[in-house]
Amino acid sequence: MSRPLTLHPDVFFSSNTFERDIARRLYRKVSHLPIISPHGHTDPRWFAQNKPFANPSELLIQPDHYIYRMLYSQGISLDALGIPKNKQSGKMADPEQVWKIFAENFHLFRGTPSYYWLNYVFVNTFGIDIKLNGKTAEHYYQIINDKLTTDAFLPRALFEKYNIEVLATTECPTDNLQYHQQIKDSGWSGKVITAFRPDAVIDAEHESFLHKLNRLSEISGLDCLHYPDYIEALSQRRTFFKKMGATSTDHGHPTANTADISDTQANRLFNRLTHGTVQADDAELFRSHMLFKMAEMSIDDGLVMQIHPGCYRNHNKHVFNCFGRDKGADLPNATHYTTGLKPLLDKYGNDPRLNLILFTLDETNYSRELGPLAGHYPCLKLGPPWWFHDSPEGMSRFRRATTEVAGFYNTVGFNDDTRAFLSIPARHDLSRRMDCAYLAELVAKHQIDEYEALQLATDLSYNLIKSSYKL
Amino acid sequence: MSRPLTLHPDVFFSSNTFERDIARRLYRKVSHLPIISPHGHTDPRWFAQNKPFANPSELLIQPDHYIYRMLYSQGISLDALGIPKNKQSGKMADPEQVWKIFAENFHLFRGTPSYYWLNYVFVNTFGIDIKLNGKTAEHYYQIINDKLTTDAFLPRALFEKYNIEVLATTECPTDNLQYHQQIKDSGWSGKVITAFRPDAVIDAEHESFLHKLNRLSEISGLDCLHYPDYIEALSQRRTFFKKMGATSTDHGHPTANTADISDTQANRLFNRLTHGTVQADDAELFRSHMLFKMAEMSIDDGLVMQIHPGCYRNHNKHVFNCFGRDKGADLPNATHYTTGLKPLLDKYGNDPRLNLILFTLDETNYSRELGPLAGHYPCLKLGPPWWFHDSPEGMSRFRRATTEVAGFYNTVGFNDDTRAFLSIPARHDLSRRMDCAYLAELVAKHQIDEYEALQLATDLSYNLIKSSYKL
Amino acid sequence: MSRPLTLHPDVFFSSNTFERDIARRLYRKVSHLPIISPHGHTDPRWFAQNKPFANPSELLIQPDHYIYRMLYSQGISLDALGIPKNKQSGKMADPEQVWKIFAENFHLFRGTPSYYWLNYVFVNTFGIDIKLNGKTAEHYYQIINDKLTTDAFLPRALFEKYNIEVLATTECPTDNLQYHQQIKDSGWSGKVITAFRPDAVIDAEHESFLHKLNRLSEISGLDCLHYPDYIEALSQRRTFFKKMGATSTDHGHPTANTADISDTQANRLFNRLTHGTVQADDAELFRSHMLFKMAEMSIDDGLVMQIHPGCYRNHNKHVFNCFGRDKGADLPNATHYTTGLKPLLDKYGNDPRLNLILFTLDETNYSRELGPLAGHYPCLKLGPPWWFHDSPEGMSRFRRATTEVAGFYNTVGFNDDTRAFLSIPARHDLSRRMDCAYLAELVAKHQIDEYEALQLATDLSYNLIKSSYKL
Repeated sequence: MSRPLTLHPDVFFSSNTFERDIARRLYRKVSHLPIISPHGHTDPRWFAQNKPFANPSELLIQPDHYIYRMLYSQGISLDALGIPKNKQSGKMADPEQVWKIFAENFHLFRGTPSYYWLNYVFVNTFGIDIKLNGKTAEHYYQIINDKLTTDAFLPRALFEKYNIEVLATTECPTDNLQYHQQIKDSGWSGKVITAFRPDAVIDAEHESFLHKLNRLSEISGLDCLHYPDYIEALSQRRTFFKKMGATSTDHGHPTANTADISDTQANRLFNRLTHGTVQADDAELFRSHMLFKMAEMSIDDGLVMQIHPGCYRNHNKHVFNCFGRDKGADLPNATHYTTGLKPLLDKYGNDPRLNLILFTLDETNYSRELGPLAGHYPCLKLGPPWWFHDSPEGMSRFRRATTEVAGFYNTVGFNDDTRAFLSIPARHDLSRRMDCAYLAELVAKHQIDEYEALQLATDLSYNLIKSSYKL
Repeated sequence: MSRPLTLHPDVFFSSNTFERDIARRLYRKVSHLPIISPHGHTDPRWFAQNKPFANPSELLIQPDHYIYRMLYSQGISLDALGIPKNKQSGKMADPEQVWKIFAENFHLFRGTPSYYWLNYVFVNTFGIDIKLNGKTAEHYYQIINDKLTTDAFLPRALFEKYNIEVLATTECPTDNLQYHQQIKDSGWSGKVITAFRPDAVIDAEHESFLHKLNRLSEISGLDCLHYPDYIEALSQRRTFFKKMGATSTDHGHPTANTADISDTQANRLFNRLTHGTVQADDAELFRSHMLFKMAEMSIDDGLVMQIHPGCYRNHNKHVFNCFGRDKGADLPNATHYTTGLKPLLDKYGNDPRLNLILFTLDETNYSRELGPLAGHYPCLKLGPPWWFHDSPEGMSRFRRATTEVAGFYNTVGFNDDTRAFLSIPARHDLSRRMDCAYLAELVAKHQIDEYEALQLATDLSYNLIKSSYKL
Repeated sequence: MSRPLTLHPDVFFSSNTFERDIARRLYRKVSHLPIISPHGHTDPRWFAQNKPFANPSELLIQPDHYIYRMLYSQGISLDALGIPKNKQSGKMADPEQVWKIFAENFHLFRGTPSYYWLNYVFVNTFGIDIKLNGKTAEHYYQIINDKLTTDAFLPRALFEKYNIEVLATTECPTDNLQYHQQIKDSGWSGKVITAFRPDAVIDAEHESFLHKLNRLSEISGLDCLHYPDYIEALSQRRTFFKKMGATSTDHGHPTANTADISDTQANRLFNRLTHGTVQADDAELFRSHMLFKMAEMSIDDGLVMQIHPGCYRNHNKHVFNCFGRDKGADLPNATHYTTGLKPLLDKYGNDPRLNLILFTLDETNYSRELGPLAGHYPCLKLGPPWWFHDSPEGMSRFRRATTEVAGFYNTVGFNDDTRAFLSIPARHDLSRRMDCAYLAELVAKHQIDEYEALQLATDLSYNLIKSSYKL
């Protein structure tokens, strides 16, 4: 028997009818607003070249670490899922076989946001109406594969169908942004912009730090193993990124530490990191200094600064050695902001030109540090629930823990932060639904009036994203 | 169009009618109980002199850091809000202009407890029936300003109208408690008592530590730069405070650390702190020692001891330098109790004469440390959700996280902890409503019977406060 | 007036009828499934000897630290409750008097899981229909005492009545497992197995470390103060435990730290710990090393490994000195897994032969570390909410915080972890109800279909326990 697959119009809303009816009215107001995606990791090449996606597995499974980390946790090898090795030799897994494994294990995702995102894509993008499992795997593969060859499923067509107003990708300062240039040159109306992500040239513990510095030297014509040139090159690249549409920078550090050190000290530190063995405390101090420096540059050039701290990258040594970065093996750590950000805030915390958006993987900070900080410092705003917390309960915890102390207007709306292009509408829909559900609860409990909730729903779904990211 | 302003009788209760009806029945039992406010920061001068409050802004905005921290976070300067500078020169902001800014930005508070507290005051104290915004700002100012000149709005009249049975203020050991004496002498029946708050004479990192020690010497006739005299002076001041009505002490330390060190060591430490440059670790050890010492004195004199740890005071250097302490720029830090309190508990944890009430800004402790500690040690009780967590969700998280491990009877009822006198009834009302809502949920889920919930509601709203604070 | 005592059939379910009806349907499917108790602390002697339990107090109060820690926290002495002292001399408290104190204070447990567990036992095991309080104390004592003398209340009869399929106890490697042998020899069909808990022979800070090592030498015939012999003895004892039915080991360390050190280093460390004063950092490093070693042995012999970290044992010095271990004075501490487990996971994290179940008392780890770790590493699974969190809200927080990131299938079902034999059905019932309530909410919010929830309810109540513990 095949089970029917449908998306219920009230999904995620309270089953209390009084509250649900309020949520429905709020959602009706925001469900069709354009999508603004100010922070994410889609590939600009897709929109530059506008070629068909290769097959269902390459489109839906292989770029989505949420999917293969779950399958891996249950004993399925990354090889079997066709995840490419660092030094791939021999044949990759057959995409139809990969799809079959995924389908047979789809029940593992019950209760996770991936379950919703994927079912949303199956129904709304591909028009499928039966559930995915081992028996329907082939049926799914066929339908999706066939559609991918049609014009309506080319990247730009989907971008338009999804009603995306702006989509930001993320690039390293060493990137020449050729695909963004190609999009501009093509005359296509879709707005795909970049964001400046300098981690690899700031973090001396990054596996390609020196390689990237050399690349930065080439691209800038400066000697980037020399500290003043290095700083100058970063400043120039920011200008270039801004010219290419960037409105923000992004910083994925292990901690939220910042440091106010002298140029002399910074210079010596940089020399040690570029000309000797990297010591962990040197690397941390240099990253802390560079957050400080980046805030300084943001004050000058107006780029909105984002800090995404607290992730222990590449935690699984074996997976990193075989498959490289970003393979679902990054793991959260306890993170501290009140002390870590103090040096930066001492200097720039009251400067009206600074816009600093904070994220966390350590939810204990919502009510303890982030809410109180954003509810005081004029430069600070709170980014949405991030990564592992980009989920119904995660979003609910975020609003419950931050609203009472920082209000709604110290938050910046939603980021999808995804490599999985097709999941973008599903993710924004989930966020809008959860905000409507939370607002409906406030109305149902008589804490705010419905007209206030309607304004807030629009602000959270659209207006705050535009204004916070200067879009 | 002016929007109507009303307070819904079911505010904060579940919109599920079965559960809401239980909450209503419980609330009916406790809504009119007298207010006991065992911990707060109102100014005893108000009740001593009983002069009219100056104007709406000075009454409602300028003493309330919840309000101006939010406005400041959205780019409004403290100058514009009429917050006095350390060395104020030149004119203060016009109070009507301050009110206008507040009114125009009142939507920022949607979803925060301040929104409820203020609307409660507008309706119940001032009888206003339209919403506050830029357009109604003048109307509000007029009404409130007019009423403040009438007898019914004098401090003592409001105290009586609010049905306050006891109100505790907080004073430094160096305070001569003249206003408390004046209240006693006046023959007025209102009970306003003090609480002993020695932070400024214990914390060597406090900006007026030495100044306060000198003041303590003057007031005690002892040499308070000499450790044994210093201890003796504190003991004498406790006796004096107790004679003036105090039943408790309060300790706002950066951490919950305690230390059991010898008198010789304490003496040497105190000498270093009073006669040289203050080292951070010396200051911390001395504070830790003094918590220990204060527990010892509490065992002797019976004053209930409160510890409010985990706040990084004056985090915003610029705001502190220009405007001084308590300007909405105190920020929570991660806090630890299991290890920090161990020395104190090793010595006094089983002494039936010690009553120690613990608070936290780090909610992770509710279920991890505070609930388990209070559910075991006879000397320990849990204070209510504090400061940033004195809110609907904050209160809900507190009960959900502590009740299952420590029960209700290891908690002490509500503290309003406020400088904003008019908000006191609103804050107690919110607390009673949230307790009734939580108890109603337990009844609705058949975990306790309604007669049990009725007893608990009264205990949490009134009885436990009286017994825990020996009132 | 005596208040009636009943157990409502919908206890713990939402009072929203739509959601409650789903919960009822799910619960109906799982409520009668056999109980599998893979981790607990009942006494195997009960089932070996099958003698009647002595009296209500010895059966229900004295083995249950949840009960006497609450009473102790409210000023009732452990002496008065008949808790035996380390060097008991003089008469123990009269059990009827102990029962009376408990009954008079039973209201203290309102809102705690103990309240439910005990009422469940009173109704379902003893058929009592009025509430326990000071007035009904004697009535209760009589009824229970009388029943305990009947055959239907012998340990084995209750085991069968409770429909227990497997019950695991916990023993030290130095235990000869005579009672387990006696059970086997008796021909009784009840399955009572052991689990290997080596803390006392691994933790040099344990009060009987050296004593236990000597005992280990005797029982193994090896010289266990000599590191290679010590390791060999542990390996042999694991084999013996496995032969006696054990399928798991259990490790209750202060932290989750692991360390990969050389044999030479381990040898030296062990010598220092066994032949000199124990240094705290040596003891911690040795425990960290031994977790690593135990994982290695688990890979060899297939025993499922459990880590229960983060408890500060014997926190109350006075209680420990007078009454010994396990007297309700163990207290949680902040715990870290992402960094602590890294050495172990670097070596064995991807080995399909390792099964490692993680527990925590620090709930901040659910969404920050444990969920993300279990959602990636194939060797890791999450144990159920533990100890202070084995409660309705605790279980709800666990599912809400872990499901979205690790799914349901990286969890292992319920553990009752109890010394209180009669509470076992109540605890499993609570867990099944809370899982059904959570699943019902997912169905009511249209996140999963009811047929999916039905499968999940059975998996969480029964199948996952069996498979995770290899039962």
